Amino acid sequence: MNAFAEVMDFTRQTEALAQVSGRLGWDQQTVMPRGANAQRSEEMAALEAVLHARRTDPKLGDLLDAAEPPDEAGAAQLRELRRGFARNTRVPARLAAELARITPLSQTAWEEARAAGDVAAFLPWLSQMIALRREEGEAIADGGDPYDALMADYEPETDAASVAAIFDQMRPRLVALRDAVLGADTPPALTGTFDRDGQLRLARKLAERFGYDMGRGRIDLAVHPFSSGSGDDVRITTRVAENDPFNCLYSTLHEVGHGAYEQGVDPAYRLTPIGRGASMGVHESQSRIYENQLGRSRAFCHWLHGEMLAEFGPLNVADADGFYAAANRVTRGYIRTEADEVQYNLHIMLRFDLERGLIDGKLRPDDLEEAWNTRFEADFGIPVDRPANGVLQDVHWSVGLFGYFPTYALGNLYAGCLHQALRADILDLDAQLGAGDLKAATGWLREKLQVHGALRNPRDTIEAACGAAPVAAPLLDYLDAKFGALYRL
Amino acid sequence: MNAFAEVMDFTRQTEALAQVSGRLGWDQQTVMPRGANAQRSEEMAALEAVLHARRTDPKLGDLLDAAEPPDEAGAAQLRELRRGFARNTRVPARLAAELARITPLSQTAWEEARAAGDVAAFLPWLSQMIALRREEGEAIADGGDPYDALMADYEPETDAASVAAIFDQMRPRLVALRDAVLGADTPPALTGTFDRDGQLRLARKLAERFGYDMGRGRIDLAVHPFSSGSGDDVRITTRVAENDPFNCLYSTLHEVGHGAYEQGVDPAYRLTPIGRGASMGVHESQSRIYENQLGRSRAFCHWLHGEMLAEFGPLNVADADGFYAAANRVTRGYIRTEADEVQYNLHIMLRFDLERGLIDGKLRPDDLEEAWNTRFEADFGIPVDRPANGVLQDVHWSVGLFGYFPTYALGNLYAGCLHQALRADILDLDAQLGAGDLKAATGWLREKLQVHGALRNPRDTIEAACGAAPVAAPLLDYLDAKFGALYRL
Repeated sequence: MNAFAEVMDFTRQTEALAQVSGRLGWDQQTVMPRGANAQRSEEMAALEAVLHARRTDPKLGDLLDAAEPPDEAGAAQLRELRRGFARNTRVPARLAAELARITPLSQTAWEEARAAGDVAAFLPWLSQMIALRREEGEAIADGGDPYDALMADYEPETDAASVAAIFDQMRPRLVALRDAVLGADTPPALTGTFDRDGQLRLARKLAERFGYDMGRGRIDLAVHPFSSGSGDDVRITTRVAENDPFNCLYSTLHEVGHGAYEQGVDPAYRLTPIGRGASMGVHESQSRIYENQLGRSRAFCHWLHGEMLAEFGPLNVADADGFYAAANRVTRGYIRTEADEVQYNLHIMLRFDLERGLIDGKLRPDDLEEAWNTRFEADFGIPVDRPANGVLQDVHWSVGLFGYFPTYALGNLYAGCLHQALRADILDLDAQLGAGDLKAATGWLREKLQVHGALRNPRDTIEAACGAAPVAAPLLDYLDAKFGALYRL
Repeated sequence: MNAFAEVMDFTRQTEALAQVSGRLGWDQQTVMPRGANAQRSEEMAALEAVLHARRTDPKLGDLLDAAEPPDEAGAAQLRELRRGFARNTRVPARLAAELARITPLSQTAWEEARAAGDVAAFLPWLSQMIALRREEGEAIADGGDPYDALMADYEPETDAASVAAIFDQMRPRLVALRDAVLGADTPPALTGTFDRDGQLRLARKLAERFGYDMGRGRIDLAVHPFSSGSGDDVRITTRVAENDPFNCLYSTLHEVGHGAYEQGVDPAYRLTPIGRGASMGVHESQSRIYENQLGRSRAFCHWLHGEMLAEFGPLNVADADGFYAAANRVTRGYIRTEADEVQYNLHIMLRFDLERGLIDGKLRPDDLEEAWNTRFEADFGIPVDRPANGVLQDVHWSVGLFGYFPTYALGNLYAGCLHQALRADILDLDAQLGAGDLKAATGWLREKLQVHGALRNPRDTIEAACGAAPVAAPLLDYLDAKFGALYRL
């Protein structure tokens, strides 16, 4: 066997074990008995140690030195493998195992602290996660910036300075739009009580309309919705609030975007390094375009309005346009995942700045809550009323996801580009959306982007799909046009 | 670190990975998307390869040669580890990986064949499983009998000849009792339609009464109920037939016996070789005593009758004794898992004889259905009407469990011994059962047997709990007395 075939054989088993690790994560967040937490952390640590040993095996390094790619896909496999090997050989096995052991305990502590509104109870875990991840970032960066190194795990080939520059460019137009929208009349919200089973039934229908394959996936409930798995076992989760069906429906569409991306990758790449999304930012572009540019479009909201009437009977909104306005209502609010398209990126900018401080040590965990609350009031104009609406609202930091938040904003930016290109190619898109027909739109995304997995780097992935390098203007133009019309600005 | 500490450290990680493997099995049978089957088989094979490599690691062999046990529990750990190492080093890694890869595919083929009543569709898979397991048995036996070697995986320190001798001893009294019972008047069955949610509610209540800790477990649905996991993550499954609540309730109690055993093992033994049941036979003794000697006792049936009335309203049986008779009704039937206590072991004897033939090659898979049907009609007096009621009724052979069936009958025998000893120690047991109070009975089993895990060999485990070596007489005496009274023989 030649070195390339041998490396792919070895890697395929590693990828299969990584899928198992992902499944354990799904299990922990959906079905695991509460009392199993400590034992599970040992199980995860044992599996992580196996994965780490394989990913840093000197034999793999030798094979990667010797391997010659047979084709373009092979070159991409080696690119991903070499990047991963260089990264992983810099992280001590002890540190990788400790992170795997602490992470589920920290997440449970976060869940409990969030329920109890007790930030102090979570701080020791947060401090530990920061210390471990900073150590990891320093090891990977090898003299460079630890935060950049952590961010590169989620979005290769960018850095905090570039992201900060993009954010500086986006912020003025987003702030101006937000101020204009919040100064206009707010349309009525959708109110009432919406049967839980009805919401889940409709969520499942939306998932199927958007091309999520239930034969290779499933939908469960979780505190913080997520998707997991690649290939033929891609699971998503959602949540239900009886007084807010948009929460369930758009959480579902968001995760469907992630899940459909993983399901849509070329089966020939299954259980290989390129058999998954190209980056977290590109992933988020799929979840956001499913959720927002498609799911919250006027045309699709008109169709969804009919479905809502059929499922729940009369609604308090006047008509289909009232429903569309309610689904795109901009108000002051605390929660990132419930934020409208206008304010969402401002939530990200807050987290980006705070987490850079946590990692570089300029912000102490003890000072985080105050820093959050101060910044939040400055940025959003209302004081945080309780930790679950503030610093404890997101799972990310509890599981060590530092450098992840900015990929949400990059995803929005990419989604803006993809949406512009999609509309240029599918001229009757609104007619299709108005009939609840997503086949052409999701088919376009599948063919242009999803099927290629991580064949290309993130920016090249977007450029190949859109025909132009990603920039912020399409997203900002789209937001101005959409909310300008909705709010008669 | 001394050799013993080192071996236990290494083993603890192996045991943690084995728990992960068990969880994947649970996932496959309860929640996995159907389309994930092929990918899952690769994931299982990768994990199995890791486990096999650890269990046959020459470093482990060296450590086991050098290790000195610090105490009685340490000696038991080394006993289990040395037995496992000797066994596993005889099985080629290729064979272990192939079994892991084929097993889920074969199980799915069985499920589909069973639903379609298509034995022929399952035969290629069965032939493959037999060939692989025979090869494994030959490798382990190292010149001895392959079936004995397979059986020893489930019940160490016995062999097919001893089991056959016990069966020869039990059979005449069981046949005589069965003929007498089937010659007497049959009491009315419980009939009606019993709400699915009500059955599951009551099943959960029974599980909790019998000491199953829901904080460290969960109950799901599966085609063929099973339990899985050890320590703090022990999951059971059940099934529901709306016209037969006994199916759900007693399947649940059966699995609760298995689950409570695993939950009851000394936490100091968690993730070690003795941190689980002593053998499949001893495991089955727990499931059977929970289900039968306790759950189907007259006293407990009286309490359960009240619960049934409360959950489902009036029943067709006359009174509590009519309910007791219905729960212990002996009729001619096809299905092992639904068989009464009188005929159950006869189902085992049929499978034991057929599977010995399959492994030693005297019975060809192509001839299995006819052999099953002929033997069944001879033993049970009725012809098999369809494969799902005959040769396709059990999952076992589809996943390679040859040598497993006899442990069910050994479990019944052990349960007979434990029940005799339990009644000698708890004189007012019937009063407690009549109040639905299982604390003393399950506490006795926990203290005398469950807490010790695999500290002792199977026979010693039973002897330590009962004060006498296991024999068949207590079970046969119990059956004669119970069914003699019920059927006025």
